[in-house]
Amino acid sequence: MSNYNDIMKKISDGNEIVGIIGLGYVGLPLAVTFARNNVSVLGFEKSLKKADAVNKAQNYIGDVTDADLKKVVLETRKLSATTDFSRIKECDAVIICVPTPLDKFKKPDMSYIESSCIDIARNMKKGTFISLESTTYPTTTENLMKPLIEKESGMTEGTDFWLCFSPERVDPGNADYKTDNTPKVFGALGEESKNIAEAVYGKAIKHLYAVSSPRAAEMVKILENTYRLINISLVNELALLSGKMDINIWEVIDAAKTKPYGFQAFYPGPGIGGHCIPLDPFYLEYIAKNYNFNLSMIHAAGVINDMMPYRMMNKIMFALNRHKKPINGSTILFLGIAYKPDIDDARESPALLVMDQVAKKGGKVLYHDPHIPEVTDEHGNYYKGVELDDKMLKSADCVVFTTNHKCFDVDSIVSKANLIVDTRNAVKSVHIETDRIFKL
Amino acid sequence: MSNYNDIMKKISDGNEIVGIIGLGYVGLPLAVTFARNNVSVLGFEKSLKKADAVNKAQNYIGDVTDADLKKVVLETRKLSATTDFSRIKECDAVIICVPTPLDKFKKPDMSYIESSCIDIARNMKKGTFISLESTTYPTTTENLMKPLIEKESGMTEGTDFWLCFSPERVDPGNADYKTDNTPKVFGALGEESKNIAEAVYGKAIKHLYAVSSPRAAEMVKILENTYRLINISLVNELALLSGKMDINIWEVIDAAKTKPYGFQAFYPGPGIGGHCIPLDPFYLEYIAKNYNFNLSMIHAAGVINDMMPYRMMNKIMFALNRHKKPINGSTILFLGIAYKPDIDDARESPALLVMDQVAKKGGKVLYHDPHIPEVTDEHGNYYKGVELDDKMLKSADCVVFTTNHKCFDVDSIVSKANLIVDTRNAVKSVHIETDRIFKL
Repeated sequence: MSNYNDIMKKISDGNEIVGIIGLGYVGLPLAVTFARNNVSVLGFEKSLKKADAVNKAQNYIGDVTDADLKKVVLETRKLSATTDFSRIKECDAVIICVPTPLDKFKKPDMSYIESSCIDIARNMKKGTFISLESTTYPTTTENLMKPLIEKESGMTEGTDFWLCFSPERVDPGNADYKTDNTPKVFGALGEESKNIAEAVYGKAIKHLYAVSSPRAAEMVKILENTYRLINISLVNELALLSGKMDINIWEVIDAAKTKPYGFQAFYPGPGIGGHCIPLDPFYLEYIAKNYNFNLSMIHAAGVINDMMPYRMMNKIMFALNRHKKPINGSTILFLGIAYKPDIDDARESPALLVMDQVAKKGGKVLYHDPHIPEVTDEHGNYYKGVELDDKMLKSADCVVFTTNHKCFDVDSIVSKANLIVDTRNAVKSVHIETDRIFKL
Repeated sequence: MSNYNDIMKKISDGNEIVGIIGLGYVGLPLAVTFARNNVSVLGFEKSLKKADAVNKAQNYIGDVTDADLKKVVLETRKLSATTDFSRIKECDAVIICVPTPLDKFKKPDMSYIESSCIDIARNMKKGTFISLESTTYPTTTENLMKPLIEKESGMTEGTDFWLCFSPERVDPGNADYKTDNTPKVFGALGEESKNIAEAVYGKAIKHLYAVSSPRAAEMVKILENTYRLINISLVNELALLSGKMDINIWEVIDAAKTKPYGFQAFYPGPGIGGHCIPLDPFYLEYIAKNYNFNLSMIHAAGVINDMMPYRMMNKIMFALNRHKKPINGSTILFLGIAYKPDIDDARESPALLVMDQVAKKGGKVLYHDPHIPEVTDEHGNYYKGVELDDKMLKSADCVVFTTNHKCFDVDSIVSKANLIVDTRNAVKSVHIETDRIFKL
């Protein structure tokens, strides 16, 4: 029996084991989705703490419900986690959901993917299907993973194992689209790999969409997020100009939205946050250099976004200046440090960058975020959130809306604060600026 | 009775006369829409030929039906046209629908708007409502029109006459959204002007949407089309890179479209065409200089688009080169010169720019477009379209798809042509290139 027939039969019999490497905001929801659909899942984690939490059904990801985790771990026992990567040999399919950060020089850090490839190559059995979900530059699957796994395993792609790239489309906090009902794009190497990908993912995900190659699938994810990056950057740039021209950009966007075709609204803010939009386009910029190609739109967008936290610090300084106060020695209270509303994630959040700029100029930085009690920024600065009471609001020299969490009582905050800088159109009634409220 | 009460009563009694300056692709559909709704319309045209055509109900605009024009001109007699601008004094409301081209240095040419303002100012009666629909840079209505009309008329805005900006949103060939059912944004100067604008436009247009100022309304239109410019530019840039990386960008876009939120698809092409997208963002770039502001996203987009016709000429040259032919002396047949599918308008069409580049390199340029029998480009070069028969297809050294008109029999063309350069994904079955078919 061929490796291919073997794995296809196992899947159709429901006897396959799916390994998922990395149980973070992508891997854990995917693992639970497979398990809920009666697929046996083995989760691999370098962090013993996370593996233990999963095995005790202690949930740490917002997009996973506690009930679902409990059910698949403790009741149906379809999901368990381990730190022992030698157990990859038990798996028929291995899906990689590890981070691909950028280093300080905006160069993709491929070490997590490389390390996963080596773990897989050294431990897998013949006939293993491998799918990468981590966002990365096009050609990674074909030109980095394939030779690396072949070298480390001594096996041959296409007969001994199969490769596929299928981008995760997790949108944390999205109430409508979760792992199972978000169409899943994949690009497999070869016809067999494509069939296996369909069989594996088809158990958990309703709509699959095949493209002709891993590199096409890699580009799909980059296109989706580059689209968002450049549109947010455009609207940030137009917001800054609009301020100078006494035009309320928020009003303009709402009016443009009445166009019933050919327009999608994006909103300005203090910068770009999250794990995708600030990163993904720069994977492409990185690989484009290899083709002597300059991606000028991404470059321009990058310049705008790198500048936004600095511009926001300026805005705070201008507002304080109008009250004859310097930023140096003033107390600045930031409201909301999550990178988007109503979530508890501050990684890559522009609020932290603005806070850092303000602190560097001598501002006394405080923050309140009902979802995030404490935070350490990328420079290692630790902040503990403060309570939002009247005394706090009145004592701050400037209050800055950096995330528009639904739970903020904006009217009450506005009535008590001395001075407000609003980077999120939290105070909708104000045009651009008053003596007390300054808008982006 | 005040001027304000007078005009409001006239409108509510249905006795108002609406003057429309410029009976082109914006003005004529608007005039017919008012007239169909029983409003008396007087159209003003500098071109005697156009005014005569309207008065004989000879239609020359694709978005107007012959039957509608006949009905309002010959039957209900609600619409007539004139070249006599002194008749502006008969009008209660005057709507300006004239072009705002860019000159060769991408500087807005405001002469049509200025000339309309002077015509209005010298002829209007007291109590005239004036609305500008021509796309222009923010602050035009307040800082250019208002002082000019006040100076030329000796009247005062806000009491003797009122000003408003309401951007046209005409999308030629759009089957779903016409003048009457496309929501109409307007920004009036003052409360009276806003009320009059609602009363005037409310007769013809179903959904009105007020913003707080003319400059906000001016920015709305720029935002809508800048959004399109930068997204088309991004996808053009990604298309060029994808070609180098052996990735089919068309396949990537179709896959990205399966994302059910946060993505809108744009498609690459030989450049940007039409009367809006290649122009509108550059009005903003022009006025931004006045605020010492550099619009880097628009600038980057402009660079890409200015380059596209040249890149397309290169693509044709590379394709011919593969067949050991130079462009110099070869016959290049372009299919489609309209700036978008299924319309008869070649102004600002990128096809003409590619043809010009190819001709400059010594190519013998022919074109076929079933909607456009002949054309003169911006350099004054005249082309007469050729018939698309087997002999023509076989004799051309290279056939280039520049507009994807629905009526093209792509399979038949592909089977007969020696060599094809496809800038529009007309040949969907081909990945990126074969020996005979080259794709953008």
